[in-house]
Amino acid sequence: MVHDTPSTPDFFARHRELLDRAVAGTANREYWSPYPESPSNSVYGGEAPKQGETTLREQLGKAFVLEGHPHSGTVNPGEVSPYGLALDVDYPRLTPDEAIAATTAGIGPWRAAGPDTRAGVAAEILARINAASFEIAHAVQHTTGQAFVMAFQAGGPHAQERGLEAVAYAWAEQKRHPAAARWSKPQRKGEPLALDKKFTPVGRGPALLIACNTFPTWNGYPGLFASLVTGNPVIVKPHPGAVLPLAISVRIAREVLTEAGFDPNLVLLVAEGPEDRIASVLAVRPEVRIIDFTGSTEFGDWLEDNARQAVVYTEKAGLNTVVLDSTDDYQGLLRNLAFSLSLYSGQMCTTPQNLLIPRDGFTTDQGVRSAAEFAGDLGGALDKLLGDPARAAATLGVIVNEGVHERLAQAAKVGRTVRRSTSIEDPDHPEAAVRTPLVALLDAEADDQTYTREWFGPVSFVIGTDSTAHSLRIFRDTVREHGALTAAVHSTSEDVLAEAELAALEAGVHLSENLTGGVFVNQSAAFSDFHGSAANPAASATLSDPAFVTGRFATLQSRRPARRPEVGDV
Amino acid sequence: MVHDTPSTPDFFARHRELLDRAVAGTANREYWSPYPESPSNSVYGGEAPKQGETTLREQLGKAFVLEGHPHSGTVNPGEVSPYGLALDVDYPRLTPDEAIAATTAGIGPWRAAGPDTRAGVAAEILARINAASFEIAHAVQHTTGQAFVMAFQAGGPHAQERGLEAVAYAWAEQKRHPAAARWSKPQRKGEPLALDKKFTPVGRGPALLIACNTFPTWNGYPGLFASLVTGNPVIVKPHPGAVLPLAISVRIAREVLTEAGFDPNLVLLVAEGPEDRIASVLAVRPEVRIIDFTGSTEFGDWLEDNARQAVVYTEKAGLNTVVLDSTDDYQGLLRNLAFSLSLYSGQMCTTPQNLLIPRDGFTTDQGVRSAAEFAGDLGGALDKLLGDPARAAATLGVIVNEGVHERLAQAAKVGRTVRRSTSIEDPDHPEAAVRTPLVALLDAEADDQTYTREWFGPVSFVIGTDSTAHSLRIFRDTVREHGALTAAVHSTSEDVLAEAELAALEAGVHLSENLTGGVFVNQSAAFSDFHGSAANPAASATLSDPAFVTGRFATLQSRRPARRPEVGDV
Repeated sequence: MVHDTPSTPDFFARHRELLDRAVAGTANREYWSPYPESPSNSVYGGEAPKQGETTLREQLGKAFVLEGHPHSGTVNPGEVSPYGLALDVDYPRLTPDEAIAATTAGIGPWRAAGPDTRAGVAAEILARINAASFEIAHAVQHTTGQAFVMAFQAGGPHAQERGLEAVAYAWAEQKRHPAAARWSKPQRKGEPLALDKKFTPVGRGPALLIACNTFPTWNGYPGLFASLVTGNPVIVKPHPGAVLPLAISVRIAREVLTEAGFDPNLVLLVAEGPEDRIASVLAVRPEVRIIDFTGSTEFGDWLEDNARQAVVYTEKAGLNTVVLDSTDDYQGLLRNLAFSLSLYSGQMCTTPQNLLIPRDGFTTDQGVRSAAEFAGDLGGALDKLLGDPARAAATLGVIVNEGVHERLAQAAKVGRTVRRSTSIEDPDHPEAAVRTPLVALLDAEADDQTYTREWFGPVSFVIGTDSTAHSLRIFRDTVREHGALTAAVHSTSEDVLAEAELAALEAGVHLSENLTGGVFVNQSAAFSDFHGSAANPAASATLSDPAFVTGRFATLQSRRPARRPEVGDV
Repeated sequence: MVHDTPSTPDFFARHRELLDRAVAGTANREYWSPYPESPSNSVYGGEAPKQGETTLREQLGKAFVLEGHPHSGTVNPGEVSPYGLALDVDYPRLTPDEAIAATTAGIGPWRAAGPDTRAGVAAEILARINAASFEIAHAVQHTTGQAFVMAFQAGGPHAQERGLEAVAYAWAEQKRHPAAARWSKPQRKGEPLALDKKFTPVGRGPALLIACNTFPTWNGYPGLFASLVTGNPVIVKPHPGAVLPLAISVRIAREVLTEAGFDPNLVLLVAEGPEDRIASVLAVRPEVRIIDFTGSTEFGDWLEDNARQAVVYTEKAGLNTVVLDSTDDYQGLLRNLAFSLSLYSGQMCTTPQNLLIPRDGFTTDQGVRSAAEFAGDLGGALDKLLGDPARAAATLGVIVNEGVHERLAQAAKVGRTVRRSTSIEDPDHPEAAVRTPLVALLDAEADDQTYTREWFGPVSFVIGTDSTAHSLRIFRDTVREHGALTAAVHSTSEDVLAEAELAALEAGVHLSENLTGGVFVNQSAAFSDFHGSAANPAASATLSDPAFVTGRFATLQSRRPARRPEVGDV
């Protein structure tokens, strides 16, 4: 096979130890971080930060070079940084037919290479993506509006870890069964019946990755690597507003595939403009057998309903919920929650929206605080956190697109606004639209039409309920019906925590309890925290677990009579 | 928890060794058979055969007793043995609402019990089903028309092994992640961030098992046990013609659940008459979250299209194919193939239908045999195999229903009939409709409309092609498009075998090579052979593999700040 010739590097041998460690990490769920999250010179080299920025600057207004990539002409999706920079990059334009034809050509050798070789190639791609973390961080910042450090961490090492996690699951899952086995069944008389059997993991077929605007790499890598390692080519279809981070990733993947002796078209970039609808065309092509999607509930539901020939892994919208029962660290709770609401202006699919609290108040170490008082205190905590414009901008980042602005304007009209969304000037980016979170006070009974839909962006509701039991009931029922990616509870009572855990199991959502320190409900760590669950309507996939990979391949078997050892055989 | 009280038996401890051995068996794919397949007195006790028959006889014309089973009235589906015996058994009748209400009531404690306890309960159910193998064998014989030994083996121990295999996958899959983990992330300054995390497997929700007429237990147990062990209640909806074998199984499951302290309604029987359509009503109920189905492509496709709230595992129809290139054991080939076509009158979902052979012939150790000559030789091998009526009846069993008779009549009109289907009198069952296989000669080009649909029953086509390459192309293309559960090739050339293996991988079907002895293409062994693949249209599931279980549960997580060890803590 191609990859065994002496001139091609053995990426599997190079990364074997990492892969074994990664598989162990998926199993023990303890802390493990293979890619350093600190954007410091000592880790990534003194030149990396400047080189990353220079590379971005040099790309502006030019064609993005993808060696040997099929195309008919180019497309400029009109990427403009929320920080004000026009990216103005041209990418190859492909018709769906061209993409399908190119992506299927290399399947045979990729299947024949086997899981070890594929996992080695994937690990090498991730190693080179890691080395390009600064370049990717700038691209993420200037497409998503994340502040730089977050763009580096979430778009770089943390995304790479989610990618490696998917590699580990995909690799291990294909090794659950042996490549060969001898079956020997004793007979009452005579020799046993004996068969030699082969077992071959075979990819389901071409995969389509439909990525999102806010976390193109973090949400994109798991599907990309899960499909690739299980033997499938991948068509990467970025959001028109965030093409560059994935274009860089695709370029690196193609380089490694080429070096390893495989067809680089196993990973394709299909960029499109905002008015194109190529995702919905590709998604229903019979050749496309796997789809990974992050984005709106509307399009996710459409994919699930219409792309019937494919397995469809979606992450959609939900009602992330916090149940407030009691706390012995009120200031810690407020600080922690204020940061969760502020990080990237609440534009994370994991940002809490619905804060359920008894109308008459909950018990804290600073006395009972009513729902209205809590809303005011939360507003105060936000003011304090975001008081310094430079530090505030580094937390908030920028509003990613017009849709979020419109939602913010609508949110100012619902319930009672306790804290308005304000503008902050980012000293380094005077044109950037920096907005602080809005907090409104709602009533559980009167305002259920408002809080049972997702308000993606810096919008949160303090919702007054009859009691904690009522809060838990609303939590369970609304998440069961509308979904959620995260949930949290604050209580000093083990009984209430147990009830909240039960409600979360019944709602099908992961739960964070009493976070008052340096861990936030909207953050999840690869190799320890599951992101999303297929157990509620917000997602049909978990990043990552065995179910995320088992549908991407089949283990096919052949068997033949075992050759009997003959006299003289050694 | 209920199952931990001293008075309830610890089924997990009792079966722990078996379960560990079963998990090892799924992983190594070597020969392993936990339930003896021989219906001999020495294995199952001298009384078992007579007791099994007596139990069946005593059941005839009576109500089937299911202790504590919900019902509103009874239903008599009108089961009549293909061997002539009227079963005339009444079963509880349930409305869909009653079934849903009853099945959901016990979910909480079943979830809380955890995977070990659930696997232990399942293993105990299987142990008692194994002890009832003779009773079940008679019930299988007199609903499916399988001859007794086959009814015993395929309906008894082999089905039980497929059930245990599913238990093993379901149990192991839920143990991939720990129940708890400590996550501790070093900080540049000060104490690490530390969280304690819990991971809980949670069932997707109520499962519906829609079983078939021909293999109610063999095709039914895997879904039943996979769903149950992953924490889900199961509604068992048998085919109206084959209720009794599953009713016995449900009774045993309920007894064990009760003894273990769980709600017996976690396993329900929903019997119906031939005109009822309760499966299609239940299948689209929002509460039903898992469906296992074996049967027609038409209803399987309908389920996949309409039961969108559920994960749907189907096994449907296909074009089981044999490619004949060459052989060095022509007589062995003919004997082996004749038996495969005759076993249970070709009414196995795995029976070969399309036999592809170069028109001008293939090379054998007895000279070149043209397609027409081969068809004649195969007819002769069938005549020889089925020459003795008593032995023939023990192989053929009985035609299961009118549909197969009609198909046989149609098949007599297509192509050139080389061997007619004949009637044989079963000396022990003079009323039984015993029919021998029909063999017709077709042409690959002229008759493609005929051989590209499934002719379920004793109908096979010898199809003349241009060459082996042409045969392989037809094999790959027809199976990709129409599906298959089995495929076989005969060749003395390693190159051709390699090409056939490649074609099978591309078609997505398992392949048997050069079977001329005591192993048959239509038989698959649990813990070694996969049955079906989700890689072609004949099935969306494999019995069993990890993909068969991962969709039935989610692993949900909770996390909280780790309690810091205090001075004085031990």
